[in-house]
Amino acid sequence: MRKQKGLLIVLSGPSGVGKGTVRKELFSQAGTNYEYSISMTTRAPREGEVDGVDYFFKSRVEFEELIEQGGLLEHAEFVGNYYGTPLAYVNETLEAGRDVFLEIEVQGAAQIREKLPEALFIFLAPPSLSELQNRLIGRGTETEDIIQKRIATAREELEMMSLYDYVVENDEIQKACDKINAIIVAEHCRRERVEKIYLSMLRGE
Amino acid sequence: MRKQKGLLIVLSGPSGVGKGTVRKELFSQAGTNYEYSISMTTRAPREGEVDGVDYFFKSRVEFEELIEQGGLLEHAEFVGNYYGTPLAYVNETLEAGRDVFLEIEVQGAAQIREKLPEALFIFLAPPSLSELQNRLIGRGTETEDIIQKRIATAREELEMMSLYDYVVENDEIQKACDKINAIIVAEHCRRERVEKIYLSMLRGE
Repeated sequence: MRKQKGLLIVLSGPSGVGKGTVRKELFSQAGTNYEYSISMTTRAPREGEVDGVDYFFKSRVEFEELIEQGGLLEHAEFVGNYYGTPLAYVNETLEAGRDVFLEIEVQGAAQIREKLPEALFIFLAPPSLSELQNRLIGRGTETEDIIQKRIATAREELEMMSLYDYVVENDEIQKACDKINAIIVAEHCRRERVEKIYLSMLRGE
Repeated sequence: MRKQKGLLIVLSGPSGVGKGTVRKELFSQAGTNYEYSISMTTRAPREGEVDGVDYFFKSRVEFEELIEQGGLLEHAEFVGNYYGTPLAYVNETLEAGRDVFLEIEVQGAAQIREKLPEALFIFLAPPSLSELQNRLIGRGTETEDIIQKRIATAREELEMMSLYDYVVENDEIQKACDKINAIIVAEHCRRERVEKIYLSMLRGE
């Protein structure tokens, strides 16, 4: 019987929303049933960071060679440093039938959406929705300026999230983690996926 | 702010798969966040069954009047008795922003798929997938007859599930309930849904 390919799960969202914190919480929990794909970077390791655990630390030359060879699923440059996702690990893990979890910036997520539209895209949103609601229906204690700023932020988020399959508000880390895990469980129950498994089994693969 | 409409959740599957058992288990658990829609029937109450709890018990004349008035979301006849879902309760609960859960036969689910394609359709499957796998990769202890029967059953299920959004195997009641709850949580995080909430809030509804 052929092994079913794993699911590529991409967690992204505006910077500062707490993607890293949510990802660490997910992987600190028992029973997490997917593999974390470690990013590659040219920035120097910070105190306590370990090569191959927090990041794969590479020189600029090494990183650019990998870009040229097509060895990165996505990459971007921030403040003079490269960040990217090594393709080999992702492909090998998916082929082995294991789910892979990426936590990356929105630019990288957009690159993956182009290359692998069948991946699962989760947008981590700041709790602006509930906040916005409180402000708008609030007790009139906010200035018009603040209300307008909130509305502008909501519009920006709306635009960013349009490429994603799911939106999870990071109002509470544990709640956000529970929702992300529920989304992954649900995706494995999607009829198209189960049908494929049935069919390949009936074909004796 | 306008209340968002609730989600209509339809659980169905082949007869004998354990839909009723799974539904009872879901509603016996604390924290179930959706309303059960009680079916209407013309069959006589069984020992211990309560009108308005297990079913709404009606006469044939009353039931047929309701069919004529378009008062049923779906209905079917089994062994000389009508079974159906009263439309008013479903509509009122959805309009109030609460999710409604239906547990019905596949014929009824097909009727709802026609009328309300935006509902959430979950197919409860017998654990034939895992069983089939065991048989096919088994130790050659099964006769060819039994293997062919399993394959035929799998094909039938495949055909039935094609109208559904999700497939949940009823290998263990608790596992099946967890998956159904995960699917409902995930559906509430779908980007299209969250976008609608943002937009209606930005319009001040």
